[in-house]
Amino acid sequence: MFESAELGHKTDKATYDKEVPNLRKELLDAQFDLAEQAKFPVIILVGGVDGAGRGETVNLLNEWMDSRFLQTHAMGEPSDEEMERPMMWRFWRALPPKGRIGLFLGSWYTWPILNRVMGITKLAELDQSLERAKRLEKMLTDEGALIIKFWLHLSKDMQQKRLKVLEKNPKTRWRVTKRDWEHYKKYDKFLTVNESVLRHTSTAEAPWIVIEGADPRYRSLTVGKVILEALRKRLAESEKKKPAGSRAAPLLPSIDKLNILHSLDLAQKLDKKKFEVELEKYQGKLAMLTREPGFKDITVVAVFEGNDAAGKGGSIRRITSAVDARQYQVVPIAAPTEEERAQPYLWRFWRHVPRKGRVTIFDRSWYGRVLVERVEKFCSESDWMRAYHEINDFESQLVRHRTVVVKFWLAISKEEQLRRFKARETIGFKHFKITDEDWRNRDKWDDYELAIGDMVDRTSTEIAPWTLVEANDKNFARIKILKTLCQRIEAELKKK
Amino acid sequence: MFESAELGHKTDKATYDKEVPNLRKELLDAQFDLAEQAKFPVIILVGGVDGAGRGETVNLLNEWMDSRFLQTHAMGEPSDEEMERPMMWRFWRALPPKGRIGLFLGSWYTWPILNRVMGITKLAELDQSLERAKRLEKMLTDEGALIIKFWLHLSKDMQQKRLKVLEKNPKTRWRVTKRDWEHYKKYDKFLTVNESVLRHTSTAEAPWIVIEGADPRYRSLTVGKVILEALRKRLAESEKKKPAGSRAAPLLPSIDKLNILHSLDLAQKLDKKKFEVELEKYQGKLAMLTREPGFKDITVVAVFEGNDAAGKGGSIRRITSAVDARQYQVVPIAAPTEEERAQPYLWRFWRHVPRKGRVTIFDRSWYGRVLVERVEKFCSESDWMRAYHEINDFESQLVRHRTVVVKFWLAISKEEQLRRFKARETIGFKHFKITDEDWRNRDKWDDYELAIGDMVDRTSTEIAPWTLVEANDKNFARIKILKTLCQRIEAELKKK
Repeated sequence: MFESAELGHKTDKATYDKEVPNLRKELLDAQFDLAEQAKFPVIILVGGVDGAGRGETVNLLNEWMDSRFLQTHAMGEPSDEEMERPMMWRFWRALPPKGRIGLFLGSWYTWPILNRVMGITKLAELDQSLERAKRLEKMLTDEGALIIKFWLHLSKDMQQKRLKVLEKNPKTRWRVTKRDWEHYKKYDKFLTVNESVLRHTSTAEAPWIVIEGADPRYRSLTVGKVILEALRKRLAESEKKKPAGSRAAPLLPSIDKLNILHSLDLAQKLDKKKFEVELEKYQGKLAMLTREPGFKDITVVAVFEGNDAAGKGGSIRRITSAVDARQYQVVPIAAPTEEERAQPYLWRFWRHVPRKGRVTIFDRSWYGRVLVERVEKFCSESDWMRAYHEINDFESQLVRHRTVVVKFWLAISKEEQLRRFKARETIGFKHFKITDEDWRNRDKWDDYELAIGDMVDRTSTEIAPWTLVEANDKNFARIKILKTLCQRIEAELKKK
Repeated sequence: MFESAELGHKTDKATYDKEVPNLRKELLDAQFDLAEQAKFPVIILVGGVDGAGRGETVNLLNEWMDSRFLQTHAMGEPSDEEMERPMMWRFWRALPPKGRIGLFLGSWYTWPILNRVMGITKLAELDQSLERAKRLEKMLTDEGALIIKFWLHLSKDMQQKRLKVLEKNPKTRWRVTKRDWEHYKKYDKFLTVNESVLRHTSTAEAPWIVIEGADPRYRSLTVGKVILEALRKRLAESEKKKPAGSRAAPLLPSIDKLNILHSLDLAQKLDKKKFEVELEKYQGKLAMLTREPGFKDITVVAVFEGNDAAGKGGSIRRITSAVDARQYQVVPIAAPTEEERAQPYLWRFWRHVPRKGRVTIFDRSWYGRVLVERVEKFCSESDWMRAYHEINDFESQLVRHRTVVVKFWLAISKEEQLRRFKARETIGFKHFKITDEDWRNRDKWDDYELAIGDMVDRTSTEIAPWTLVEANDKNFARIKILKTLCQRIEAELKKK
């Protein structure tokens, strides 16, 4: 892995001085084209061993390029707001929008490597982190991002030499800390872990570029040239490469028209008296659960999807009226804003991921990708096909961070929907009115049924299962939802 | 102040049950119209004494209204990310966009009152906080926001009674904390401070609505009706009310065409040799200063404005190349995004206010309001007129929080600009190219001179002075900027 980066690469001053002016000019030009086109973001990771020039490289790139369109992020200790969310949240909030470059000093690899070398985590945990990192990078490149990963390497002898040189010079002495020397002592352990990390995560989409860090001129020139070439290559591709839209086989051919939704007994009912008893019971329970001391250590994310007029709003209100307003937030998902469109699909959901002790209710959600966007062809087939995987990954990150992910699909029959549409057209509540879009969606009932079936098959996981709610009877639906929510929270609270 | 709120207001159950359904329906309708029009944001503050039903009121409003378009914010202890920025930052980040309601439990009054009652702050500091609060509210209403401030009051006897009632009921017992009883013991002290706060901050734009909190039905109905009436009244106004555009007198009539810019000696120069010596000196100094331990407790905000082609970019690069890339960020100010346009003018600058130990460089800034927006008539005269005041207020909040605010105006002569425009038209750097807009701006040279003169007169304050930089000679300008920046940081570091 590191063989070529221990050969003693060097660039003499004359060559360097001759090449740099042109390289800078071309980098600036490429950056300008990137900003002008604003078609994809660029993510540059700078990793490597201590003393190999990571900080210097980042500084140099800031000097060479236009720092107005370059955001540098040093991923040191997370803040308390970051600690209260899944690990990847801090990277999501730092992602560059299309047309910009995000330069990361330290990345999603830093802590997994460090924790492994220090013996804090086991090998299996490291492997999990690497799988997460790979999935994140796959998602980012699928969304069009250009990822360039640099690893600055030094042989053991060279690391010692570099640290000593830096320490001698009064101008660079501050750069060498006690920790650097401690890390140096663990050089061999680092080497083993680094080697394994690089091997596992050097993918076709985002390969590692290992560069020998000993000679600053060689290192700088190489980094600059790699970036320039990657930018130029990508800018030349007229459009974001999309895999061909057709897949070999349909997800599951619908031969007998049987569908998971058809298996629901929509006739289930709850009479008013029973409803009121149960409502008080489960709202009381929810109120108690969210006030338990242990609730401060967990997070709840509730997703509401369902047919139009299936009663999402009413069900959400039965939850919120039991929870203190300081603890919950309802996030209605509408068309993405301009800033959201400049980011990967899941960004606009990540930004609402709550802190500990909070409940966030999504009124429609990331599942729009595999429902409306699929049916209406707002995105390509490959986009919604990969979404199943990305969504499962997103939710598993939430769950790992002790988030209760509860997902409700509110199902009503086609006849019941018609009845409700007609009823709503006569009532006074403006915000309840049926729009033309609602009628258009209704025309695509069968397409939606197919999409819902695939969604449930592919995203109902053990850690974040779908709850299908028979919602022809509102009372029945509301109690089923409250009860499920209580059970899931209770189960999580018992875990500690 | 509180007389009418100690009369023992009550609403009987029959009246309440009769009025609520209609009130809820009308509130929902008004909220729907608000979201549809999306012309202004609504900010509702809920303050008052312990036990008067603040939390219940917030919960009730969430139940009555559509919580999807209602964001509730409990302003408890600030997070570490909030602590590292001026106090108001946490409110700015929580402001609702146009069309939405932000419901604040606790507000910019909470901590000033508490700190005063507990004797942590002096009267003068309380007064300062109140002035800041008033200025914030004035700015928000000038920007079109509807602010409704509720104060829920209880007489001393009634507070004791309510706390006891809440404590007796097992369902509400958790609500009464030890702190509530401690606060009760200080009732008289609270009364004095509260009275004074309400008196000072009950303005024409945002008056306090004091409501007796003892009877939940009376309290709830009153709160609901006040909100409904305020919403309806405001929605009925076809457009955001703008004060008439003309002012009584011009800021300073330009009789002799003398202008602060004309007093600059643009012929000042620095030869290359001297420049290189000085550059090394001040870049070295800046590098040292930003690495001092004390720098972790301060923040630097540098603003760059100037004529087109005056050399802002080059000057910024001379700063950034001396500072570690992990510590600084350059924020280029372009047209606002959709999310930014839905917020008050200064929101898009507040969101970039850095944490401690960081340097943020604005390439163009909030001064756009009194420069390009004034000259091009992108905003009304009253908008840019009040901006001077709002900007001074913004900067003084930064300075209070130990932020070094350095503002540079880079001035070149009209002839020098022409020379540079022509030179740029022949060079290869795309991002340096002169656009049609640059030529158009040049045609308005005199209008800009007037606007710059007013800007300097009105916003060059002792705490955040403008530095006018003679920039016909780039070397001279760069050194002056670096030197000024070093001096200002040094002065701030010496303060502690």
